[in-house]
Amino acid sequence: MTGIDVLRDDVSLDAPTLVEGLPGVGLVGKLAADHLAETFEMVHYANVHCEGLPPVTTYEDGDRELVTPVRLYADPERNLLALRSDVPVSPGAALEFASCLESWYDDGEVTPIYLSGIGRGRAEEESPGLYGVGTGAGSDRLAEVGIDSPDESGLVSGPTGALLNHAVRTGRTAVGLIVESTPQFPDPEAAAHLVEDGIGPLLGFAVPVDDLIDHAEEIRQAKRRLARQMQEADETSSQARPLGMYQ
Amino acid sequence: MTGIDVLRDDVSLDAPTLVEGLPGVGLVGKLAADHLAETFEMVHYANVHCEGLPPVTTYEDGDRELVTPVRLYADPERNLLALRSDVPVSPGAALEFASCLESWYDDGEVTPIYLSGIGRGRAEEESPGLYGVGTGAGSDRLAEVGIDSPDESGLVSGPTGALLNHAVRTGRTAVGLIVESTPQFPDPEAAAHLVEDGIGPLLGFAVPVDDLIDHAEEIRQAKRRLARQMQEADETSSQARPLGMYQ
Amino acid sequence: MTGIDVLRDDVSLDAPTLVEGLPGVGLVGKLAADHLAETFEMVHYANVHCEGLPPVTTYEDGDRELVTPVRLYADPERNLLALRSDVPVSPGAALEFASCLESWYDDGEVTPIYLSGIGRGRAEEESPGLYGVGTGAGSDRLAEVGIDSPDESGLVSGPTGALLNHAVRTGRTAVGLIVESTPQFPDPEAAAHLVEDGIGPLLGFAVPVDDLIDHAEEIRQAKRRLARQMQEADETSSQARPLGMYQ
Amino acid sequence: MTGIDVLRDDVSLDAPTLVEGLPGVGLVGKLAADHLAETFEMVHYANVHCEGLPPVTTYEDGDRELVTPVRLYADPERNLLALRSDVPVSPGAALEFASCLESWYDDGEVTPIYLSGIGRGRAEEESPGLYGVGTGAGSDRLAEVGIDSPDESGLVSGPTGALLNHAVRTGRTAVGLIVESTPQFPDPEAAAHLVEDGIGPLLGFAVPVDDLIDHAEEIRQAKRRLARQMQEADETSSQARPLGMYQ
Amino acid sequence: MTGIDVLRDDVSLDAPTLVEGLPGVGLVGKLAADHLAETFEMVHYANVHCEGLPPVTTYEDGDRELVTPVRLYADPERNLLALRSDVPVSPGAALEFASCLESWYDDGEVTPIYLSGIGRGRAEEESPGLYGVGTGAGSDRLAEVGIDSPDESGLVSGPTGALLNHAVRTGRTAVGLIVESTPQFPDPEAAAHLVEDGIGPLLGFAVPVDDLIDHAEEIRQAKRRLARQMQEADETSSQARPLGMYQ
Repeated sequence: MTGIDVLRDDVSLDAPTLVEGLPGVGLVGKLAADHLAETFEMVHYANVHCEGLPPVTTYEDGDRELVTPVRLYADPERNLLALRSDVPVSPGAALEFASCLESWYDDGEVTPIYLSGIGRGRAEEESPGLYGVGTGAGSDRLAEVGIDSPDESGLVSGPTGALLNHAVRTGRTAVGLIVESTPQFPDPEAAAHLVEDGIGPLLGFAVPVDDLIDHAEEIRQAKRRLARQMQEADETSSQARPLGMYQ
Repeated sequence: MTGIDVLRDDVSLDAPTLVEGLPGVGLVGKLAADHLAETFEMVHYANVHCEGLPPVTTYEDGDRELVTPVRLYADPERNLLALRSDVPVSPGAALEFASCLESWYDDGEVTPIYLSGIGRGRAEEESPGLYGVGTGAGSDRLAEVGIDSPDESGLVSGPTGALLNHAVRTGRTAVGLIVESTPQFPDPEAAAHLVEDGIGPLLGFAVPVDDLIDHAEEIRQAKRRLARQMQEADETSSQARPLGMYQ
Repeated sequence: MTGIDVLRDDVSLDAPTLVEGLPGVGLVGKLAADHLAETFEMVHYANVHCEGLPPVTTYEDGDRELVTPVRLYADPERNLLALRSDVPVSPGAALEFASCLESWYDDGEVTPIYLSGIGRGRAEEESPGLYGVGTGAGSDRLAEVGIDSPDESGLVSGPTGALLNHAVRTGRTAVGLIVESTPQFPDPEAAAHLVEDGIGPLLGFAVPVDDLIDHAEEIRQAKRRLARQMQEADETSSQARPLGMYQ
Repeated sequence: MTGIDVLRDDVSLDAPTLVEGLPGVGLVGKLAADHLAETFEMVHYANVHCEGLPPVTTYEDGDRELVTPVRLYADPERNLLALRSDVPVSPGAALEFASCLESWYDDGEVTPIYLSGIGRGRAEEESPGLYGVGTGAGSDRLAEVGIDSPDESGLVSGPTGALLNHAVRTGRTAVGLIVESTPQFPDPEAAAHLVEDGIGPLLGFAVPVDDLIDHAEEIRQAKRRLARQMQEADETSSQARPLGMYQ
Repeated sequence: MTGIDVLRDDVSLDAPTLVEGLPGVGLVGKLAADHLAETFEMVHYANVHCEGLPPVTTYEDGDRELVTPVRLYADPERNLLALRSDVPVSPGAALEFASCLESWYDDGEVTPIYLSGIGRGRAEEESPGLYGVGTGAGSDRLAEVGIDSPDESGLVSGPTGALLNHAVRTGRTAVGLIVESTPQFPDPEAAAHLVEDGIGPLLGFAVPVDDLIDHAEEIRQAKRRLARQMQEADETSSQARPLGMYQ
């Protein structure tokens, strides 16, 4: 079985918007998508079985049911999907993953919002820059809600770059949001800004971000610990490892 | 010839339970499966010829007959199988191995119990944490016998992670037991706990573990010596090497 | 979709000349092709989707529309195409890329001018050496406009070498221009010389190069910064990065 | 042409025994097979062209005829084959080689004796331990001639391990002899013991080993020189190199 | 287009002899073949497009026409071909190259002379050792013209080893000449000896070698410079580089 394995046939979605949260610079995408899923209590909607994803399995606190490390969560009320991942997607697998995911979009007429950080330091009181890029009807949608166009030329790489590359290649509608973020550390403030001024306007409703800002320091520490654990892991040997509270 | 080569047609099993014992963190799975095989004097039931397993051969003390490095042992009285391995299974081969093994399960309606350690230090008198995860009917089975659900989120990698990933993908019933174990050293106490409070309840009968606890220090030293020998081995050159008493 | 994706059906070209500008020694090809595109305000004519190009996407200052990192620009008035790239093309992908690009040439009867530097130091007032090589009708064309034949034997490697190798193999017409350039640094003066004494005569009209010469020092610094950024980029992690003014 | 290329149709063999001599720990297998070939003046019977063997060629002192680096030698009087090799067989190629070789066995009903050292130091006057393992009718054959069964569990890796693994997989008759040998240096004494107490009894006739024992020191030095030369060889550059007297 | 692309249909050859000159130990083969081509003013007869050869292109001093880096030169008067190369052939590509080249031989009934050095120091006045090896009718041909058989066992590796291995495998006629040469430096004296006492006798006419001996020191220095340049080349970046006078 390869592809998207929908677990909840009782959840009905009508041309939903998907917010992608793969790990990347500043972890802004993952922080934002995880935040949406928790804030709106989105339900675990589908397991993602795409070639190239690492052959591992995950479980959640208090639940014995095993799940895939990359999953879709849904909020039928808001017509919203979140793509959450417990693992990085390697560059070699990114194109394969993009093709696997986008072939499923077609069935459900999904409009994706892809998220990327752009590494840049900033002063403490400063607000991180944010701009939007797109393909198909994506650019017009960004203009409608007043998200800035980029004020410099740039390049998006990694799995999010592959997803956007695939959208350009196939000519489908997609939106990319790019937020300035600190390159070395997880950046919850940049993720909050991304949610408030980028994702919210595109979705058409406000998303509270107090949690991301109030617990910024805890999140930063938990994520740094997680990154260290993943480097220590010896992949030739089976093991379980905890994913942590703000994973 | 690829797959499971059953050597004992005289051994009759009816929808048996399989306990997996591939090398992993703390060697808990291997220690547990080897302990079951020795305690119940299980018979060498099948050789395992799956693609991706290292092309080596093993022999046992006092027996001239060559066998595969990964083997199944059976106890028809207890309707039990143990998967024992003298070699590590590489991550690249793990998915292939999972598919090879699970395609055989279907014929015999085998229910697998997969074992993994989770690296964590503990005080001497402390009992290691243990919890269960599963797919298909696995979660309900764990609840019936009162094995805890996980008290944190986590991820299982390595060959055991691949076996569980394959079970999630194919939707079949499987159980995973995760026990806290010391990451660097073999941990016979954790293996004993895994057998007593995890495998025993699932099998429905008690398994004596005195041997694992009484010889913990000898086992630890023998296993450490084994690990060292395997690193020294020069794979481009043919050689035999001893596997040791508590291998 | 693999191949050349023409975006502007309203742009009409009749057996055009293509100037290739992939990154290489002294960045002379990229500097020259980018200079042509900016000087003649060439329009973004086609996205290039060839196997082996990195799966990334780019955007330009002030424009939300995502584009491919390798693109064709056109000037219908001058019957000219420029091949511009924001990314290096790996040696492994170069033959595949050459085949993808040349299969499109056949439809439009495109005559390519390939550009390469040859690393060599020179005194400040000295003019860099320039010579031309070719296949098919290319050599005669060079002789007609008086571009020197090489005064030493030589070898062209990298993606430009692969494009020329492919032209030799298929027997088609192509021209290669080779200019002496400083190996370690971007060399805008060599690029200016290449444009003025090589590309201009072949195209049959003069191309102003003051901009390349007047801003040589700025270009050099911007490019060096760009090269450094690309080395720092962690490819396993998604991110956007700026491409800079003289990118 | 892949497979075994028999050069001597005039040599007639009837279900012969083959003694394998690929390089391995202590070089015991190579020393033993080469010793048999020289002692019985066995004739060059076949060239071995199996996929995965290095694409090199060898020649012998005083003979202009080029041969393959892996070859079969025959003694029709004693119904004996020796597999000699001038090159190591890589682990990646070992399974392929095993399959290539064994597919030829079937035609000639060949019974192979595979040889492996097991690294272990010993005092000067001590005799190295020797035991036999087998598949099919191999174990019984070992018992008949009184070769010990192993006194510890063990694992055979490298090309000899792959040949034995292949025999287990296909269920054919094969014998493995394992002799204790010094791991770092060629060990002619262990090879002599292997020939005298292992190969001889299995063949049913005595093989003089004085030569191996009397010239042990010379052999050791020649082999060490050879190993050094092979490491120095730059494989990207064609070259001939001498193989030495006791090669 | 893969294979041999004959450029000169006006050149007529009748079962010619081919002298191979790929780079190898002491560069003796390349020096010898290049020397023949220059001495007899052989014409550029064919481009060689075999899979696995590096995708680069070369040009010659004073000539705008691009050529392949591996080429055949012909002397119809002497019924002679020389295989010249501006690039090394990697071991991985060597078998593929051998097969590509030999499949063309069959059409033209070409008899190849393959050349290899064998690294060995010598005193200044000493003449380097030379001997011949062969397959098919090759050995007899060597005996007829009195070229020594080897006075030690040996192994030929690299692309020349692959060409000879392929000849053994296919059973065709080929000759290999092996000359002692200094391993680290280009050795024009050894190449001269190879031409005078090996190639000349086989071809049946004398070849003057004064040039190789008189300019030995210049050749050595030019070649060493060339080797250095090739190591400095950054293959991910397109560039031209000079091949030098005695390239």
